[in-house]
Amino acid sequence: MKHLLSAGDLTRDDATQILDTAEEMLSIAKRPIKKLPTLRGLTVVNLFFEDSTRTRISFEAAAKRLSADVINFSAKGSSASKGEGLKDTALTLEAMGADAVVVRHHASGAPHRLAEAGWTQGVVVNAGDGTHEHPTQALLDAFTMRRHLGDLEGRRVTIVGDVLHSRVARSNALLLHTLGAKVTLVAPPTLLPVGVEQWPVDTSYDLDTALEGADAVMMLRVQRERMNASFFPSAREYSRRYGLDAARMGRLADHAVVMHPGPMNRGMEISADVADSDRSVIVEQVTNGVAVRMAVLYLLLSGRQDHTEETHS
Amino acid sequence: MKHLLSAGDLTRDDATQILDTAEEMLSIAKRPIKKLPTLRGLTVVNLFFEDSTRTRISFEAAAKRLSADVINFSAKGSSASKGEGLKDTALTLEAMGADAVVVRHHASGAPHRLAEAGWTQGVVVNAGDGTHEHPTQALLDAFTMRRHLGDLEGRRVTIVGDVLHSRVARSNALLLHTLGAKVTLVAPPTLLPVGVEQWPVDTSYDLDTALEGADAVMMLRVQRERMNASFFPSAREYSRRYGLDAARMGRLADHAVVMHPGPMNRGMEISADVADSDRSVIVEQVTNGVAVRMAVLYLLLSGRQDHTEETHS
Amino acid sequence: MKHLLSAGDLTRDDATQILDTAEEMLSIAKRPIKKLPTLRGLTVVNLFFEDSTRTRISFEAAAKRLSADVINFSAKGSSASKGEGLKDTALTLEAMGADAVVVRHHASGAPHRLAEAGWTQGVVVNAGDGTHEHPTQALLDAFTMRRHLGDLEGRRVTIVGDVLHSRVARSNALLLHTLGAKVTLVAPPTLLPVGVEQWPVDTSYDLDTALEGADAVMMLRVQRERMNASFFPSAREYSRRYGLDAARMGRLADHAVVMHPGPMNRGMEISADVADSDRSVIVEQVTNGVAVRMAVLYLLLSGRQDHTEETHS
Repeated sequence: MKHLLSAGDLTRDDATQILDTAEEMLSIAKRPIKKLPTLRGLTVVNLFFEDSTRTRISFEAAAKRLSADVINFSAKGSSASKGEGLKDTALTLEAMGADAVVVRHHASGAPHRLAEAGWTQGVVVNAGDGTHEHPTQALLDAFTMRRHLGDLEGRRVTIVGDVLHSRVARSNALLLHTLGAKVTLVAPPTLLPVGVEQWPVDTSYDLDTALEGADAVMMLRVQRERMNASFFPSAREYSRRYGLDAARMGRLADHAVVMHPGPMNRGMEISADVADSDRSVIVEQVTNGVAVRMAVLYLLLSGRQDHTEETHS
Repeated sequence: MKHLLSAGDLTRDDATQILDTAEEMLSIAKRPIKKLPTLRGLTVVNLFFEDSTRTRISFEAAAKRLSADVINFSAKGSSASKGEGLKDTALTLEAMGADAVVVRHHASGAPHRLAEAGWTQGVVVNAGDGTHEHPTQALLDAFTMRRHLGDLEGRRVTIVGDVLHSRVARSNALLLHTLGAKVTLVAPPTLLPVGVEQWPVDTSYDLDTALEGADAVMMLRVQRERMNASFFPSAREYSRRYGLDAARMGRLADHAVVMHPGPMNRGMEISADVADSDRSVIVEQVTNGVAVRMAVLYLLLSGRQDHTEETHS
Repeated sequence: MKHLLSAGDLTRDDATQILDTAEEMLSIAKRPIKKLPTLRGLTVVNLFFEDSTRTRISFEAAAKRLSADVINFSAKGSSASKGEGLKDTALTLEAMGADAVVVRHHASGAPHRLAEAGWTQGVVVNAGDGTHEHPTQALLDAFTMRRHLGDLEGRRVTIVGDVLHSRVARSNALLLHTLGAKVTLVAPPTLLPVGVEQWPVDTSYDLDTALEGADAVMMLRVQRERMNASFFPSAREYSRRYGLDAARMGRLADHAVVMHPGPMNRGMEISADVADSDRSVIVEQVTNGVAVRMAVLYLLLSGRQDHTEETHS
């Protein structure tokens, strides 16, 4: 594995290796000095064309715990905003010695272009591209589920909300399928993507039915700015039909967990009492995000220090 | 002491311990390598809901000299700006492994909520909340005075300007009282807060009288954007009555020092020749700010590395 | 040499020492661990009053590879934007212990004021001031040429485009002259500065003639926002007369190199095929930029750790 672009590129063995490595990384957080020298002398660039403080600082914390140097490159106010293309930005970062580029881009497929056009010898990690994919989110979600549910083979995961615009849903559907789980997507018909019948999932318009038998339920964030669009029911209607409140949570099996990629709209797709309840693992997801990103950077980069001499000369 | 939220929380012993520790930290700046390994492996997050480059880089420099990893989180363009509440931001930072959160917030009391709501096990340092408090500023001011005047018991400090909107004035009044100094606040009546009679200070509307016998005079920054409000005299009038110029400075005792938290409006609350005069300690205040913040982070965090195992497991 | 303010301040020996040191720094990039401990414990502040992500991250990468602590100070949203003068910003950074200030400013001459007004004992590096100078760009350009062409004595360099507004052109003209190269500036008459006859260069309005015999041709970036101004021909006309395309490149000698300081407007001042051709050294310029900036910081700062005790006490 040279890059991490799509959750769909991962074999079950790949994914398991990442999750197992993340387990080790998580134990670092319990040490007095939460730092490994592993990536010392390597440079990780956070190349963010979209704001995403949460994802950026999660990667930044992960890289720093592995002793890498981190450079944050926000495309706002940069030459990228003056019209420089992705190609020249990529060539520039490569030339400056970026060993890994963590890229968040509003255009679906941008990380693939970055990785595959031969512009860079560095590692590319997709930190979210358009409505397409967000593979480290899917990995941290799988990691969180595995810690609570054990092996995901045969487990049932219900993903609820605006699937149409959600890279989280897509990456989760792909990875969970690879890991043997059964995924049900729940959304109003207008918020399911065209072609969802090709995805390895079931779909439903009815949340109450889809909660039965679920081992994990993952609530997607509602983008309030989309709420006015015609494909969206009113906020109240959405919340009533697709929000998770205490009454609905009561129908879940005792062992089932409630997840959310954050940031939450409390009172919209999830009620505050559910978000803060014992079966919510939402805060753990954040902790696990750092561990999973440490694992990804470690696996992609740790061989690199030995090979740098060859690669660059 | 678990957090640093208010200057009023500090006992005289607490404050003295911080100032004594800052003395040691200041000596680090004179070493060839201005760095201690003390906080290696710990993460300090600068969580700034308001811009304040000066305060942010002072904390950043302090944390880096103690070898902590620093993550800057500006709430602009973050999920906080998309409506995520302080609670979820706090839970996120905690989950990512922040050992200390240095918080600047436009709402008075935000750092207290952060510290006391149980959202985080990390240390919270108030870096300025609304018009309420700015305790590290008060500590660096006391530190600067102590270096020039010795023990502050019985010393007289005159604080001049927009006390109504000043967290600097409030924190100084509280801390200086604890340290035994006598504080006089000087401002036009409209710029003194309601209830100031409960503060442990004298008040005056007349600067010239209040300079007599002062050991230190601290000029507050005029917020130009408030100048149009009805409670403010005209700029010229303000400067004439409440500005410190060379003539007024001439009435101070020889040993008295002139202070300002910065950034200054030269020609408004302080004239340029006073700002640059020998008795101005304004630049020293900045240097001392780094030392005091190193002391605060050190005292709050240095035990933490040993206890991390317990705290997190 | 205490600061780096102008390419014109460098003697031939100074420049050669920087370029020779940059050669050593470039070899660091080929090591498994691309990091030297040289500047550990020193603080480099990037003080940027203008956005320039490329230049900022190049300096940031350079400083981090030498193990300095880096603090980014963007003047936007800072007290500088609230009207604090350059003087007080400089005094503040000095007081916080900045060992070097890398400054980008919209006003020509700002770095000189910073260095020469006695506000700071730190090193000042000009990272671009107004339309005046950008000395590290000239150094990285000379370094890149020297690697391809050997000694620059007698070499012919053609610089093409908006010379009037270009600090890159000015710094290059000065440094290349010092190094013995012959410079020809090519631009429409409206885009040559008044007084260019005093510069140690030839000028021409005709690109085709000026390409004959050139050992290196450097295309300047067109600032699209200036395109509407009356002194500028239309984009199409500019591109036709002053753009470098494959046909024009074909007239260059076999050994000649094509350069651009970036970011490029592909299709405007340079065609995409030229930018990506074998004789383009544009990407190398970026790599060399980090090496040259490491050399500059190293030469200006490396003696400083030993002298810090004296300087600060």
